[in-house]
Amino acid sequence: MAKAVLTPQAANFPAWYQDVVARAELAETGPVRGSMVVRPWGYAIWELMQADMDRRIKATGAVNAAFPMFIPMSFLEKEQEHVDGFSPELAVVTHGGGEELAEPLAVRPTSETVVNHYFARWVQSHRDLPLMLNLWNSVVRWELRPRLFLRTTEFLWQEGHTAHATREEAVEETRRMLEVYRRFMEETLAISVVTGEKSPGERFAGAEHTYTCEALMRDGKALQMGTSHDLGHNFARAFDIRFSDAEGEHRHAATTSWGTSTRMIGGVIMVHGDDHGLRLPPAIAPHQVVVLQLDEEAEVAAAAARLEADLRGAGVRAHLDARTHTSFGRRSVDWELKGVPVRIELGARELVSGRATLVRRDDRSKTSAPLDGAARAAVALLDEIQDGLLAASRTFREEHTHPVTDLDEFTARVGEGGLFLAAWSGAEESERVLGERTGATIRCLVDAEPPAPTCLVTGEPARHTVLLGRAY
Amino acid sequence: MAKAVLTPQAANFPAWYQDVVARAELAETGPVRGSMVVRPWGYAIWELMQADMDRRIKATGAVNAAFPMFIPMSFLEKEQEHVDGFSPELAVVTHGGGEELAEPLAVRPTSETVVNHYFARWVQSHRDLPLMLNLWNSVVRWELRPRLFLRTTEFLWQEGHTAHATREEAVEETRRMLEVYRRFMEETLAISVVTGEKSPGERFAGAEHTYTCEALMRDGKALQMGTSHDLGHNFARAFDIRFSDAEGEHRHAATTSWGTSTRMIGGVIMVHGDDHGLRLPPAIAPHQVVVLQLDEEAEVAAAAARLEADLRGAGVRAHLDARTHTSFGRRSVDWELKGVPVRIELGARELVSGRATLVRRDDRSKTSAPLDGAARAAVALLDEIQDGLLAASRTFREEHTHPVTDLDEFTARVGEGGLFLAAWSGAEESERVLGERTGATIRCLVDAEPPAPTCLVTGEPARHTVLLGRAY
Repeated sequence: MAKAVLTPQAANFPAWYQDVVARAELAETGPVRGSMVVRPWGYAIWELMQADMDRRIKATGAVNAAFPMFIPMSFLEKEQEHVDGFSPELAVVTHGGGEELAEPLAVRPTSETVVNHYFARWVQSHRDLPLMLNLWNSVVRWELRPRLFLRTTEFLWQEGHTAHATREEAVEETRRMLEVYRRFMEETLAISVVTGEKSPGERFAGAEHTYTCEALMRDGKALQMGTSHDLGHNFARAFDIRFSDAEGEHRHAATTSWGTSTRMIGGVIMVHGDDHGLRLPPAIAPHQVVVLQLDEEAEVAAAAARLEADLRGAGVRAHLDARTHTSFGRRSVDWELKGVPVRIELGARELVSGRATLVRRDDRSKTSAPLDGAARAAVALLDEIQDGLLAASRTFREEHTHPVTDLDEFTARVGEGGLFLAAWSGAEESERVLGERTGATIRCLVDAEPPAPTCLVTGEPARHTVLLGRAY
Repeated sequence: MAKAVLTPQAANFPAWYQDVVARAELAETGPVRGSMVVRPWGYAIWELMQADMDRRIKATGAVNAAFPMFIPMSFLEKEQEHVDGFSPELAVVTHGGGEELAEPLAVRPTSETVVNHYFARWVQSHRDLPLMLNLWNSVVRWELRPRLFLRTTEFLWQEGHTAHATREEAVEETRRMLEVYRRFMEETLAISVVTGEKSPGERFAGAEHTYTCEALMRDGKALQMGTSHDLGHNFARAFDIRFSDAEGEHRHAATTSWGTSTRMIGGVIMVHGDDHGLRLPPAIAPHQVVVLQLDEEAEVAAAAARLEADLRGAGVRAHLDARTHTSFGRRSVDWELKGVPVRIELGARELVSGRATLVRRDDRSKTSAPLDGAARAAVALLDEIQDGLLAASRTFREEHTHPVTDLDEFTARVGEGGLFLAAWSGAEESERVLGERTGATIRCLVDAEPPAPTCLVTGEPARHTVLLGRAY
């Protein structure tokens, strides 16, 4: 048995998380506080997520573009709530080309302002609408308590920005993208999420409505995995995005924005990971199957290469590990740490028996298959693993979601972790009280009967059912 | 006939360039001086270039990663020549999170310093080498005379960084990547390039040797399209990248870097464009074929949709333009401006005759093909166009490359444009004299017999043959 290389989750979940990120070679702390170096294994996961998400976004009719990272401070100030929301987080460029700049520049914390500035130039007629853009870039928000992938000063993401003729269409777009995100998270990341509207206290600065995807991590804390914002006419008014409608009337467009980031990698780690390391859903595994060549004999090497070719022929991202001079234990521990879904062990013994050993990463169970059927057996396992991880994520979330009707009971139980359903009056002040008393926040409003007739916090008549929890 | 929408190339090439960039909706000036918004058509071209280049880079064994955009100033200062080279171009962040920073941060002008800092952590043994990374990101170099795609304060690019056990391996990598670039430019961009070493005056700050791909634009000016740098032990010494070799001796690694950027889009515009707009090589055309539906009748719409499906079935990026309420002239001019390689016109008349009209963008010639053979005919045209553009680029470059043996003659002729082959002594001072007298630079050293026994500038014995020209 290889000795444990990670702090166990039960002993110290944050230490386990740091260990996995380091040992699976996903990322490292950057040289500037809060910044991050995404190492090749982490970046390969991101590339697969990007490619999948990009296809889904383009299927909605949006197209990609690029906008500058430097934004004049005056742009940010045009939408008051927006500048208030981002001011304390900005990185500011004051010098360029060896001189002090006349106007300081913000490094984009998000691109609503600059995109909507250009929307105003590009949108003249109703025939220019809808205008649907997506950007893949990185943004900067100064972080005092950084954590790799979850909260870093600079992070990689996609940000969508759209303009529509009517509020109705913009709301429809906001919800469509929330659904695109939900399906991506479930189908690709194998993470079950709750979707719903954010409360006013958690809304994006400048939005009329913010919708979110919330997932439950294995330590019982919630993680916001993606958001979609109905910006109403706020940015269109601030940046003067007007179009002439079919009757020749000039009207303001309605805009939206929506984003997901490398934070989702943090979610994948904390939803699927176990005490042996990462467990990657096959859809985003850079190597879906590793063929572990156990002996250096030419016949073994040939059989291992043949199996790798079979797997590739079957559309599998296969990798042949022929490092026979490195110990079996070290190699198998490494691939477990890195979360490779299936490992196939193939040595002289397997050649004699005519059967290879397949090891699943999810439950670490072993099966064997005839050499010429091993690729097919691996493909079947990959499907099972992808489905199994999602099912486990859904079961875990459901089993750790509880209705609560009494604030004292909630305060006592919130430390156990998990999500809680409660009745809420909708009073903004109660959000603050809730946070101060329990450390929990309203993750989102959900479409369900309130578990009590009166608000958990204020005792006023219940107007909403909310999902509560402590969050990253 | 549609009237000319662009300034003719012969009348004013820079104005023509600006017109094409604007009218083909490739890019716009950003809100901050020197910055750029890449619009969807320009970005779609970039995405195709990226995907193709990314495959080629990965085929060499390099893998992708991401590094932070903020670099401590002290990192840049570790390699003296490097900091001297970039200091006047830096954008500097002095404030973050509402406070003045203790150490100002440079926005990366290129990532050698931060990447080599991490190489020093990751490289311990000869078994860790070679280490080959590639980054897709944007970098910032303050530009006082910006020009879209060619020279912008922020630009999109890829930067490769590798570390090797020996100088020989590093030199081999530098040349391998130069060859990857050359083949990409010829096979994908259909641009014929000259490759060679840069003279000391044009070398990358901190490199031992810089190799370049140089192309000739239609106005007779040269464009540097990509560079590959042998960094020797310079960065390894500055950042202390050492490894223990097979004998246990500690030695410095040798490193390289290499990069190409959105500047190549400027090259595509200026090598292939004509007075009707862009001419895109099929390999990077977002729409390779546009089916122009001429009439709105249901049968025409059905036939056009069928043709689009045929084309997609044949692996063609096809687009159906069914905007029958927009004039034929405007639509055909638009697709010519945007450089779509083949346009297929299909209306009621074509349905009657059973033949569609195919229009090539390169020579604007028309042919016709039976409706059920139109997709096959278009595929054949795409191959011809890709090959023809490369051949034309090669011919143009060759016909505009002249040997010169006399400085006065060169000074008189350099204004005509084109490239010139000359004998050079290798004396650094002569590069300055050459520039001041002629406005030309040494584009690169080439592997050919000098056209004269003595240096064009100094009259000293010739040691190299150099390619001269005025450049972007």
